[in-house]
Amino acid sequence: MGKGRIEVFSDGVLAIIITIMVLEMKTPRAAELSALRPLAPVFLSYVLSFLYLGIYWSNHHHLLYVSHRISGAIMWANLHLLFWLSLVPFVTRWMGESHFAPGPTMVYGVILLLAGIAYTLLQHTILLQEGAGSTLAAAVGRDWKGRISLLIYGVAIPLAFLRPWIAGALYGFGVLPWLVPDRRIEREVDLRR
Amino acid sequence: MGKGRIEVFSDGVLAIIITIMVLEMKTPRAAELSALRPLAPVFLSYVLSFLYLGIYWSNHHHLLYVSHRISGAIMWANLHLLFWLSLVPFVTRWMGESHFAPGPTMVYGVILLLAGIAYTLLQHTILLQEGAGSTLAAAVGRDWKGRISLLIYGVAIPLAFLRPWIAGALYGFGVLPWLVPDRRIEREVDLRR
Amino acid sequence: MGKGRIEVFSDGVLAIIITIMVLEMKTPRAAELSALRPLAPVFLSYVLSFLYLGIYWSNHHHLLYVSHRISGAIMWANLHLLFWLSLVPFVTRWMGESHFAPGPTMVYGVILLLAGIAYTLLQHTILLQEGAGSTLAAAVGRDWKGRISLLIYGVAIPLAFLRPWIAGALYGFGVLPWLVPDRRIEREVDLRR
Amino acid sequence: MGKGRIEVFSDGVLAIIITIMVLEMKTPRAAELSALRPLAPVFLSYVLSFLYLGIYWSNHHHLLYVSHRISGAIMWANLHLLFWLSLVPFVTRWMGESHFAPGPTMVYGVILLLAGIAYTLLQHTILLQEGAGSTLAAAVGRDWKGRISLLIYGVAIPLAFLRPWIAGALYGFGVLPWLVPDRRIEREVDLRR
Repeated sequence: MGKGRIEVFSDGVLAIIITIMVLEMKTPRAAELSALRPLAPVFLSYVLSFLYLGIYWSNHHHLLYVSHRISGAIMWANLHLLFWLSLVPFVTRWMGESHFAPGPTMVYGVILLLAGIAYTLLQHTILLQEGAGSTLAAAVGRDWKGRISLLIYGVAIPLAFLRPWIAGALYGFGVLPWLVPDRRIEREVDLRR
Repeated sequence: MGKGRIEVFSDGVLAIIITIMVLEMKTPRAAELSALRPLAPVFLSYVLSFLYLGIYWSNHHHLLYVSHRISGAIMWANLHLLFWLSLVPFVTRWMGESHFAPGPTMVYGVILLLAGIAYTLLQHTILLQEGAGSTLAAAVGRDWKGRISLLIYGVAIPLAFLRPWIAGALYGFGVLPWLVPDRRIEREVDLRR
Repeated sequence: MGKGRIEVFSDGVLAIIITIMVLEMKTPRAAELSALRPLAPVFLSYVLSFLYLGIYWSNHHHLLYVSHRISGAIMWANLHLLFWLSLVPFVTRWMGESHFAPGPTMVYGVILLLAGIAYTLLQHTILLQEGAGSTLAAAVGRDWKGRISLLIYGVAIPLAFLRPWIAGALYGFGVLPWLVPDRRIEREVDLRR
Repeated sequence: MGKGRIEVFSDGVLAIIITIMVLEMKTPRAAELSALRPLAPVFLSYVLSFLYLGIYWSNHHHLLYVSHRISGAIMWANLHLLFWLSLVPFVTRWMGESHFAPGPTMVYGVILLLAGIAYTLLQHTILLQEGAGSTLAAAVGRDWKGRISLLIYGVAIPLAFLRPWIAGALYGFGVLPWLVPDRRIEREVDLRR
């Protein structure tokens, strides 16, 4: 089956998720600049989620780029990932509006964790099909970035109840290893040309 | 006429439908985890509709994959299907917010039924054009999945007035036969290569 | 310049316009079926606008299909059309919520008229580039459908102040000639193959 | 890496941004035509932002058209641009609803400025990769349009505190040089064919 439509559909869903988050930022009623101040935590959580969704889009892009065939299993693993990502605007808004209160900050981490696991599952499903000698297998390697992310979320989630702002900072840290997200795959692709 | 744009447009509409549903989940005002509890039926109906729309997208994908030409009739049959699917967020929200009350639960089933009929019509329109000896005709066969789904909705709709939660469970059951949605078409495509 | 992106962008905008209209239908607070009755005019105006946007998408599809090159002028004529169409959800909601009151019903017609003129301009811009002997020129011919539509809106707009429901019915009539929207173009394409 | 997905994703995001702005225009409760009058500044700011986003889409289209390879740096520069553009609906609504009050009008200019800088950065990142002898380098030249725009915003932003309507008019002026946005690139592409 063709890759085209799964890419277009996923791009569409990710583009909508990343864009509707900004709809959540209610315009202040007052026209003074100071009216923006209470929006700061909402804006901060928007930036964080924008980065995460940008990373997911970019990684997803590379993952499908090196896949050769889309099976039913891959299609469902992909929908599973999109499901958890679709909840990101909800938890972003809740965390922002509650000014990083313990409960919402924890739930935000849980959604990140579940999305991370869903991505790992999707990667695994594609790897199973591509085989151990494939470009993808070499590129992913031991997947230390994926493991570190899941570890960070695992630490931040319980911490959110004690020090929610530290948990928020950890979510921010979780972005860093991905900022150059796919040198792995790019290098492999170049090597095999 | 090209298949490209009907696929892109349908993917766009389906991606938006599946994503805006989550906009309906209002963030709780309280920051406690217990504030999520009243959202449970809303979340449940969201999961159900996400699965249905995922199935529709996947089946639609396969249906167009084996079509060779898009006529005006197919274009309108496709818009007809998208129309009923576009009402899914509305009935999802109503069923969820009313905590699966009889009326909304019945209307949800009616929309599923109408979307199911619209899909059957689209399939029929494409079959008419492709012919009885086509890949699609062999793949669809007697279409027992489609028939079972319509039967389930037909049972669940009146039942919604007596036992709405049983109707809701039936909608959930209606998902199961589609979870491996197109082995039929995949097998046929492989056979004919 | 390539046609691909103008098609993807237009499809995206049209898909969003057609889908967000349903967001405007507020879920009734009550869970009784009778709570749907006051939504009838909102639903009716939604169906009308869905049909119009479906027609625009389909005609737009055919128009670009027979174009060979996208100039800057075509790009702006296309954005101009999308601008008026982007106002359709606003006037649809207003006409529906006001139960087809004179003012909103008139404004709805004005937007249809402006979108119709914008489509004619886009067609003209493409025709200028393709030339008088092109497939498109032969297919469009005297464009009686386009002329009839503009005539219908021209009659319905002033009528909306006296008999808004007749104006609404005329908008419905305006759909009919387009229901087989582009046999013209399809026939021409077939002839020239 | 392929250009296809970055184009589809950007088109999706831009299509959503340009379309959801109209969702912000609340339908008047009254059904009289005069009820539209208070919407005038909201409508005006919508037109302005529609034009700007149309220009960005069109320029983005041309920029990627002449790029040959999408690196990780380009992908992030592109996301950076989309981030600032995603804030346009928020500031459009605020400026419109406040009837072009000083604060919101200034913030609108700041977002235009940041988006303009992000576009320049994206252009620069692509130029670095394409090289000084490339089609793009010749087409962009000294980039006087980009410079004039940034200059206009730089003047309008402080002015917004004294005379917000003049700042608004300047934002309108900033559109003009872009109305024929890419004759530069089109000419270069033609020359090198």
